[in-house]
Amino acid sequence: MEIGLIGLGKMGYNIALNMKEKGHRVVAYNRSLEKVKAIEKEGVEGAYSIQELTEKFSGRKAIWIMVPAGSPVDEMIEKLVPHLNEGDIVIDAGNSHYKDTLRRYQELKGKNIDFVDVGTSGGTSGARWGACTMIGAEDDVFQYLEPIFKDICVEKGYLHTGENGTGHFVKMIHNGIEYGMMQAIGEGFEILHTSSFDLNLEKVAQVWNHGSVVRSWLMELTESAFKKRPQLEDITGVIRSSGEGLWTVQEALELKVPAPVITQSLFTRYGSEQQESFSGKVVAALRDEFGGHGVVKHE
Amino acid sequence: MEIGLIGLGKMGYNIALNMKEKGHRVVAYNRSLEKVKAIEKEGVEGAYSIQELTEKFSGRKAIWIMVPAGSPVDEMIEKLVPHLNEGDIVIDAGNSHYKDTLRRYQELKGKNIDFVDVGTSGGTSGARWGACTMIGAEDDVFQYLEPIFKDICVEKGYLHTGENGTGHFVKMIHNGIEYGMMQAIGEGFEILHTSSFDLNLEKVAQVWNHGSVVRSWLMELTESAFKKRPQLEDITGVIRSSGEGLWTVQEALELKVPAPVITQSLFTRYGSEQQESFSGKVVAALRDEFGGHGVVKHE
Amino acid sequence: MEIGLIGLGKMGYNIALNMKEKGHRVVAYNRSLEKVKAIEKEGVEGAYSIQELTEKFSGRKAIWIMVPAGSPVDEMIEKLVPHLNEGDIVIDAGNSHYKDTLRRYQELKGKNIDFVDVGTSGGTSGARWGACTMIGAEDDVFQYLEPIFKDICVEKGYLHTGENGTGHFVKMIHNGIEYGMMQAIGEGFEILHTSSFDLNLEKVAQVWNHGSVVRSWLMELTESAFKKRPQLEDITGVIRSSGEGLWTVQEALELKVPAPVITQSLFTRYGSEQQESFSGKVVAALRDEFGGHGVVKHE
Amino acid sequence: MEIGLIGLGKMGYNIALNMKEKGHRVVAYNRSLEKVKAIEKEGVEGAYSIQELTEKFSGRKAIWIMVPAGSPVDEMIEKLVPHLNEGDIVIDAGNSHYKDTLRRYQELKGKNIDFVDVGTSGGTSGARWGACTMIGAEDDVFQYLEPIFKDICVEKGYLHTGENGTGHFVKMIHNGIEYGMMQAIGEGFEILHTSSFDLNLEKVAQVWNHGSVVRSWLMELTESAFKKRPQLEDITGVIRSSGEGLWTVQEALELKVPAPVITQSLFTRYGSEQQESFSGKVVAALRDEFGGHGVVKHE
Repeated sequence: MEIGLIGLGKMGYNIALNMKEKGHRVVAYNRSLEKVKAIEKEGVEGAYSIQELTEKFSGRKAIWIMVPAGSPVDEMIEKLVPHLNEGDIVIDAGNSHYKDTLRRYQELKGKNIDFVDVGTSGGTSGARWGACTMIGAEDDVFQYLEPIFKDICVEKGYLHTGENGTGHFVKMIHNGIEYGMMQAIGEGFEILHTSSFDLNLEKVAQVWNHGSVVRSWLMELTESAFKKRPQLEDITGVIRSSGEGLWTVQEALELKVPAPVITQSLFTRYGSEQQESFSGKVVAALRDEFGGHGVVKHE
Repeated sequence: MEIGLIGLGKMGYNIALNMKEKGHRVVAYNRSLEKVKAIEKEGVEGAYSIQELTEKFSGRKAIWIMVPAGSPVDEMIEKLVPHLNEGDIVIDAGNSHYKDTLRRYQELKGKNIDFVDVGTSGGTSGARWGACTMIGAEDDVFQYLEPIFKDICVEKGYLHTGENGTGHFVKMIHNGIEYGMMQAIGEGFEILHTSSFDLNLEKVAQVWNHGSVVRSWLMELTESAFKKRPQLEDITGVIRSSGEGLWTVQEALELKVPAPVITQSLFTRYGSEQQESFSGKVVAALRDEFGGHGVVKHE
Repeated sequence: MEIGLIGLGKMGYNIALNMKEKGHRVVAYNRSLEKVKAIEKEGVEGAYSIQELTEKFSGRKAIWIMVPAGSPVDEMIEKLVPHLNEGDIVIDAGNSHYKDTLRRYQELKGKNIDFVDVGTSGGTSGARWGACTMIGAEDDVFQYLEPIFKDICVEKGYLHTGENGTGHFVKMIHNGIEYGMMQAIGEGFEILHTSSFDLNLEKVAQVWNHGSVVRSWLMELTESAFKKRPQLEDITGVIRSSGEGLWTVQEALELKVPAPVITQSLFTRYGSEQQESFSGKVVAALRDEFGGHGVVKHE
Repeated sequence: MEIGLIGLGKMGYNIALNMKEKGHRVVAYNRSLEKVKAIEKEGVEGAYSIQELTEKFSGRKAIWIMVPAGSPVDEMIEKLVPHLNEGDIVIDAGNSHYKDTLRRYQELKGKNIDFVDVGTSGGTSGARWGACTMIGAEDDVFQYLEPIFKDICVEKGYLHTGENGTGHFVKMIHNGIEYGMMQAIGEGFEILHTSSFDLNLEKVAQVWNHGSVVRSWLMELTESAFKKRPQLEDITGVIRSSGEGLWTVQEALELKVPAPVITQSLFTRYGSEQQESFSGKVVAALRDEFGGHGVVKHE
């Protein structure tokens, strides 16, 4: 197929190489142009403006966007639309909120431009060597694009999840589950680490990856992390979050679904980013008030 | 009544003054003898050894122990018993675990010495000016001691909770609830503090103490804390815990009672005491493994 | 003062009686007119339409709205505005979301109509005999209305929290704290109830209300509840929620403030409303998959 | 090797077949003798008493015990010891608490009998076709037994975790992580199920098993569960627990390690087993007390 690819971040760059390797014609554009030059050196065709990108296609255009969620997606679509014809396809393969996706789908439908939402999982290595994709699209649009999904994903690694919005929705929940799994692994290894037993955490992760109930890709990555740093000694416990965990919790709240584990995983991340907890100060001050326990003063 | 009082910490010292003021004869002993001298200056009779303490009573002895929970209580009882006669009463008014209390009750029963467990709440000011006590005791022993409880507690502020062990058991749960209430207050004020509105937290606590659903002594203490430090600016968010919250959670686990709020309050305290979270390091390392998000290195 | 009062639900009805008793002229309107008739019998002036309500005032009108949050408030304001003059005051004393309040404030400001947001706490008895109110308003509008707040609240029971929106914002957080406190109390009493000790829960709540650290209005209500039903025997554990707890959690998420206790309190409520937990089914099915533990089938 | 195997439950039965198939001589005993007869039909040598079992070995005896944790293990060891000689080996491959294991190790050491603790994961299919084992043992004892672990586990699926106790300790934490992962999956699928999108949950689980970050054996089992029951329609959400999740939480509490996710997973299970929540009743009653919200009565 012919694919225009916008956004050469870690994910987009690897997806472009992946597509090209499978024999597709990829024309890649990125706002910061060094990335375009870099990928040209790897044999991918580059474009130095959106106009140039779109002019390189003669037939039905399929433009794969992989930029940060939120306004960057809207801005990119706005710039792109004047260069598209009816029937062309915009594919948002980034981490957009599914409600934005539903809005964009409606807006583009009004212009007879097809829209597809793709949730992409598997990390950067998956993007390069075989991803997992969840695809929200009208049936005929999905069928038109299916060859590309088949090629860039691992076997059985793509799914037409249903109508527009479902690709990003299912990917969002995927990330919520991921948050919970990671936090469960983190807690377990903290107990192992804190216990008086002298355990080799890399070896523990390794054996758990061979026949145990918790064997998983995340446990393989745990093994890999401990291989690099046996006690994770030089890194901090600050955990960033990209938004999808938050959205999952917000969705659970709207649907009145109790989601204590996913939510706690998120709050733990938020707590890890705080220099200091104001609620902790309040509780410490209260203990001093009634019990004269004293408070720990800043040094 | 005549009361021997062992342990002149913050709570015991104030209880001794409270008892004396209500017209009881109190003889006070403390391992570190300066406290004995100090309280003598306030008009309370002192004793400089356990033997001296016990020899100052002619009739049925009632010995009120208020020392740290655990082995200090066992050691004190062991030292005390040789000086007691059948029918004398040992009162453990500290924060003992109720299972220790049940064991001590049985041990002393074997020697025909009465045992009473008293859970004491109200902080140091309550100990001085009117406490709240929960009393586990055999009926006749409770009745014998009732005058002293009536005097040192606020009106309606004492309860014969039932058989031995119940005094400490009910006090333990009291503290579990206290943990949850304090954490709820802490979280609420952190949201107020973090919001973009410019709010006077002392005034907010104050108005909530006048007619609102959350009016409470803890909210009064919150008001007092913000009066002293409008932004709690010079203290840290490190929250210590004395054991009763932990015991409440352990009890919930044994009874299979879901206690998410009390447990979270405890875990938040534990987290506040950590310099660094190992589970946080694990999760951060995992994010780097699959997403190349990088990790925050120690500086 | 002269006050038009719209909304004679449990809260509005009692506030109207409260205002009237303090010597204010209250004209009350309610969509369902029986309530108007009812309150007329208690000596409060009634109005049978919004027009009639507004025509009963000659000077600056102050209209106190106490209707369910959301669209009912918008609809009422829309009906009311045509009958108002510049400088008249709309007071929203219901449980509106503060973001709606900010919007309404701006909309009415464009028409030179003053707007005040009042968070009201203290339950129905507080509404009748002395409430607690948090007031978001411009300074001069607050000062104009202060006499009425002074009269209907308990002493020190009203606060000008600051600019518009703050009244409802502070009330929202109040409710979040309330959720956490209630859940903490619930968990504690479930442990007491489940333990092998035979405890009188009413008496326990009572003694905790006299001198203990957890003494509070909510504990007084706990005492009252157990007085009516010693084992809460005829009621279910289904806990409804009105929205403010949810909003508090959503606010915490937006501000990245960890709020585990308030959130767990909310999720516990949501769980209590479920006939059956789908997540529970998933976990039960998984246990059967790997362990052959079997699943509990519907009968 | 020659192995005596005691306990032909789901796990022991499959392990015995697994060992026999790999060419080891297995003599199997079970308290209820029908199981012995059943496994004899599959070609495994049976024994109808512990004495008979032990008499079938001429050299160093290695006895693999796989009975329920707690007193059954102690009883079995007590019956077994009179028939053992110095240097014989008792292998506890069940789900014992590691503290019991440490005690048993010391007790048997006093009799010069070797003891090995084996945590076994992988479910019943793993027991049959390739398990994952974590082994706490002295070095020479581990080396003596290594051939059997090598044979009955998947490749790289066994680990000498360290000194005695570590096998069961590491297995315990494994199960804690498992609880958290399962609950995260449960919550995610409940959100998918509750959303207004019409999603095929089996297909979602399937695609997540091919290239996604959350690919794991548990997700494969999720796929399998939805294959059997697309909406899990005929099963309840009651989740039993065997003890290891509880022990993990208790360990976290002792070590002061915050473990919110594992703990919430456990509490969710406990909640699922309750017919009714007493804490829910308390909170519902409180809402009625202050707000007149009413309570839901039993029908």
